[in-house]
Amino acid sequence: MRKKLLTACIVAALGAGYAAVALSQVKPETLVRQRQAVMILQGKYFGPLAGMLKGSVPYDAATVTRNAAFLDDLSQMPWDGFAESTKGAKSFALPVIWTEGAKFKQAQDQLRTAIGALNAAAKSGNEGAVKAAIGDVGKACGNCHDNFREK
Amino acid sequence: MRKKLLTACIVAALGAGYAAVALSQVKPETLVRQRQAVMILQGKYFGPLAGMLKGSVPYDAATVTRNAAFLDDLSQMPWDGFAESTKGAKSFALPVIWTEGAKFKQAQDQLRTAIGALNAAAKSGNEGAVKAAIGDVGKACGNCHDNFREK
Repeated sequence: MRKKLLTACIVAALGAGYAAVALSQVKPETLVRQRQAVMILQGKYFGPLAGMLKGSVPYDAATVTRNAAFLDDLSQMPWDGFAESTKGAKSFALPVIWTEGAKFKQAQDQLRTAIGALNAAAKSGNEGAVKAAIGDVGKACGNCHDNFREK
Repeated sequence: MRKKLLTACIVAALGAGYAAVALSQVKPETLVRQRQAVMILQGKYFGPLAGMLKGSVPYDAATVTRNAAFLDDLSQMPWDGFAESTKGAKSFALPVIWTEGAKFKQAQDQLRTAIGALNAAAKSGNEGAVKAAIGDVGKACGNCHDNFREK
């Protein structure tokens, strides 16, 4: 049942939130609400970093370090919420998520890689490297939204 | 301005999400949406653990470890969203949050302590200790909801 519900790609990206609970037991609307909650929080913690890159927010290394660490966890959380059971639920998700699973997984990986690099840059304390990494995270967000989210 | 906006207790609990961005620049509705997003995700990752304690979800040590780590981050995220600017915004928050700041902070600390203990228990691999710690996290959730959230 669970296998039927999920594309192979989404299974590969499954977080442990539901590792012990069949996704089929969770209402599609709940899954949508949870994945949208992650997006809201990614915005909360990425927003100030994007501001630092643009220069609208003063650069603050401690904020970078903490927000990057939060984003490392947050960016693992949304993907199991894109179960096939949510196809018909009201959301901004485009159907291509379920027809082009490999491409969707690639977009997730791009974000995870960019956030890994951001955490490494934050540890290095090199402001230039941090700003380049913030730019790459922004590109990964944009890439996924452009291709898999309703305009 | 920022000092005026926040009670001393909420300042003490401030996360770094906004350390570089004045909270006064963020719309109250946005702050409410963000803190509610954290609650949704705390539910996502605590739910299966509560199920393990009740016996409705099979015990799974890997899920415990991962969810406990996620909860460690998530439980740091809601508090700066309870800025005084949000007093009038639509939410389940009770006004006592802003009149009894010390008690509210104590409830936050109780959750943070319980989640710290849960992470320690998860590392120990002792199922009994994990289950006791899950119970304490549940009590901390309930304590805060009972006192600071509309029924």
